[in-house]
Amino acid sequence: MSSLAMPAPEAATLARRAEIVAALRAIVPGEGTVDHETGMRPYETDGLTAYRQMPFVVVLPETVEQVAAVLRYCHENNIRVVPRGAGTSLSGGALPLADAVLLSMMRFNRILDIDFDNRTATVQPGVTNLAVTQAVAHAGFYYAPDPSSQIACSIGGNVAENSGGVHCLKYGLTTNNVLGLEVVTIEGEVLRFGGKHLDQEGYDWLAFMVGSEGLLGVVTEVTVRILRSPETARAVLIGFPDAEDAGRCVAAIIAAGIIPGGMEMMDRPAIHAAEDFVHAGYPRDVDALLIVELDGPQVEVDHLLGEVERIGRAHGATHCRVSESEEERATFWAGRKAAFPAVGRISPDYMCMDGTIPRRELPTVLKRMAELSQKHGLRVANVFHAGDGNLHPLILFDANEPGELDRAEAFGADILRLCVEVGGCLTGEHGVGVEKRDLMDAMFSEDDLKQQQRVKCAFDAGHLLNPGKVFPTLHRCAELGRMHVHHGQLPFPDIPRF
Amino acid sequence: MSSLAMPAPEAATLARRAEIVAALRAIVPGEGTVDHETGMRPYETDGLTAYRQMPFVVVLPETVEQVAAVLRYCHENNIRVVPRGAGTSLSGGALPLADAVLLSMMRFNRILDIDFDNRTATVQPGVTNLAVTQAVAHAGFYYAPDPSSQIACSIGGNVAENSGGVHCLKYGLTTNNVLGLEVVTIEGEVLRFGGKHLDQEGYDWLAFMVGSEGLLGVVTEVTVRILRSPETARAVLIGFPDAEDAGRCVAAIIAAGIIPGGMEMMDRPAIHAAEDFVHAGYPRDVDALLIVELDGPQVEVDHLLGEVERIGRAHGATHCRVSESEEERATFWAGRKAAFPAVGRISPDYMCMDGTIPRRELPTVLKRMAELSQKHGLRVANVFHAGDGNLHPLILFDANEPGELDRAEAFGADILRLCVEVGGCLTGEHGVGVEKRDLMDAMFSEDDLKQQQRVKCAFDAGHLLNPGKVFPTLHRCAELGRMHVHHGQLPFPDIPRF
Repeated sequence: MSSLAMPAPEAATLARRAEIVAALRAIVPGEGTVDHETGMRPYETDGLTAYRQMPFVVVLPETVEQVAAVLRYCHENNIRVVPRGAGTSLSGGALPLADAVLLSMMRFNRILDIDFDNRTATVQPGVTNLAVTQAVAHAGFYYAPDPSSQIACSIGGNVAENSGGVHCLKYGLTTNNVLGLEVVTIEGEVLRFGGKHLDQEGYDWLAFMVGSEGLLGVVTEVTVRILRSPETARAVLIGFPDAEDAGRCVAAIIAAGIIPGGMEMMDRPAIHAAEDFVHAGYPRDVDALLIVELDGPQVEVDHLLGEVERIGRAHGATHCRVSESEEERATFWAGRKAAFPAVGRISPDYMCMDGTIPRRELPTVLKRMAELSQKHGLRVANVFHAGDGNLHPLILFDANEPGELDRAEAFGADILRLCVEVGGCLTGEHGVGVEKRDLMDAMFSEDDLKQQQRVKCAFDAGHLLNPGKVFPTLHRCAELGRMHVHHGQLPFPDIPRF
Repeated sequence: MSSLAMPAPEAATLARRAEIVAALRAIVPGEGTVDHETGMRPYETDGLTAYRQMPFVVVLPETVEQVAAVLRYCHENNIRVVPRGAGTSLSGGALPLADAVLLSMMRFNRILDIDFDNRTATVQPGVTNLAVTQAVAHAGFYYAPDPSSQIACSIGGNVAENSGGVHCLKYGLTTNNVLGLEVVTIEGEVLRFGGKHLDQEGYDWLAFMVGSEGLLGVVTEVTVRILRSPETARAVLIGFPDAEDAGRCVAAIIAAGIIPGGMEMMDRPAIHAAEDFVHAGYPRDVDALLIVELDGPQVEVDHLLGEVERIGRAHGATHCRVSESEEERATFWAGRKAAFPAVGRISPDYMCMDGTIPRRELPTVLKRMAELSQKHGLRVANVFHAGDGNLHPLILFDANEPGELDRAEAFGADILRLCVEVGGCLTGEHGVGVEKRDLMDAMFSEDDLKQQQRVKCAFDAGHLLNPGKVFPTLHRCAELGRMHVHHGQLPFPDIPRF
């Protein structure tokens, strides 16, 4: 089978296009197959809004049988497929391709089972992240991973990108909270991985599928772990005149054996932007602010708050304020959660990076990032999950100024290379997608990348699922491990920027 | 490449054998290559002592380069390889094959790096599980997964089998505590997965390699997470006149949002055997005993102990005793940890099963297991990780009584099928190995098993790494997904039982 799919639509005959649309419509009838421009327009971009591309056709199946039939048809006819959840990906993971079927899972929006004894919820992939918590909150439970987009993003998308959030320091990323999956392969086979039990014989497919960015299969059902809401949660704001001291404080809290529910850090530009926007009560006269949340039984939380304050003071903190009510705790977080839009108010454009570093490199990386800011002549605001070393530098630029977008991209790439250099990696929770694809070889050896593609080939030998994402170079499966057959670029370059 | 490796040694010419031994000795000189009977005898079996098989030759490399060279040589010459750690596998994962090189990793016994700020330890795979804790205990840290064999079992073996232990309820299995791996493929490529940072771009190799039972590659370096030792740990014994009530109590504790450091259950035969052996202070007049350990800050532990006691009483507990000293806590655990040898004192032989069930099925499964015991006419003692639904029924039998071993095996298979039937699976922490290989199709569909083998093929197309383990039927890689080429048995039948 050729690794080249059908030609782009502008080259395809109208008859061929009509034939494909008719075949898809026979599987997913009525409004489930969309091929007119206005209907497809909402799918043109995802959360990585710098890139736009209209899909070839959109299908919205409602049943597993329809998903399997669509994939089987595409497989038999060598047609590419881009799976999509709510389209909030920050790395371009759900970005359409001009020559690919866009497979939207948003009609899979039912909650199938809630099991409090086993502490699980089984849902369809189009259910939003927040809806899982809403479905179990009445009984005192919640779903822990909480990306900032949780009101909109889908569980299926969370699985594809291994999404995190403020709470993943203590409760893990998506991969640590998914217990079971149903997945349809490009050949239309329906596979089930995991369940309501501990571990599983055979390979750990579950972990392997989570974070595979739509390249291995389409998720049609997800069983997640739900947690009992903590008895108490309190947050403390700790301000430092010196950002490197704040970095050292983060490492000291963790080394003391305390795992906060969340431990976030913001630098001066981010603090000011957030405070101007939502009036969260942040101090303006500090260079770095930590928001540390402790959760658990009341007695434990009170005890640990004292410990955290003590460690903060010992590291030079000049400001320390504990939330005294649920309302105040929510206000502390409101500033952090609105940080991205707040930064959007002080700059025409910004680019959000997502590197991860070993925790103890925080002070070094903060210093080197300031130097890079000078070098590229662009401001940077830092808002990040400090507790787990997951950085989200926001690079400020103006796309209308000639050359600024290019400089911002170069700055971003330098930051990510710096993360790898100190022993970290290119992404913490946003995925590779198209955004970091061409940086993969800064992280992985040629042997590493070839081995990854061998496994991709074991699922999808024709490279039909979400092509152009994740891998910088495509190898033909039949030849893999012997030679490069196809050194050129994937279809991504045909996606216009802005 | 043929999927059949070299013929068994009795059929091989002595010259061919000498040639292979010489080639291996050129890579791993001196006592690193062992081909005489007395030297190979210690490798004849593993923790699944019902099976014995002398290896073809044993090699004990000391460097990654030697491992890569041995594997490359075996790959080029189509020779099978069985990787081995300390040989404590309970599923036969390290069992030799008559026609395979046994690759022992026990010379890889150095601790390479300890990093308290990042809370990691990097060790070679032959380091024992307990040695990791011993290396960091002076600073108040420990390594959480604690299989009963922790004094002997190796970290590399823990990675291969995804080992658990008493603490995995709260702190996870091996897969939740491994942050980085170096792995050599059968082709001699050296790959590195993960590191000291959160998440990683690309597929989650790390989770995929953990639990792959030596079929994908040979682990040469492991980076694990170390945890701060809890400020306090206290255990409570809770006895029930009714085992099903104990099962309901376990579900109620978890549903209350309490995650104990460990939550173990023993039934009457196990309680009596353990008490007779180590005098742990267990009540003799109960049908089921829970050992629940709470750990964390003193204030939290005291609070939660009260909650657990209250829930126990509400579920009909007649006995409740909290450890009042570290010594008493150790005594409570001593009975549990000695339960297997204790049962060995009351029966000539026993077989330890390892199924996992959804927690809320505990009462049902206990009842059905008692019925199966009647049906097969064999006693069963139950010792298990109740908190995570991981059962370890010990089937008591006498191998010298004709037919008893066969009946024990049939009883064991019935238990595992029961686990799958109620939504659980065949293994919690011992792996599939040879023991549960032929039950894999009770758990997985033909599509599931084919897909697993496609990925195996992406790593090891010649089926040279640990063949005969895990998969009930071998498919030729080149044909996979089209037809069965090789429906027959793998080399396992040539391993004599007892």
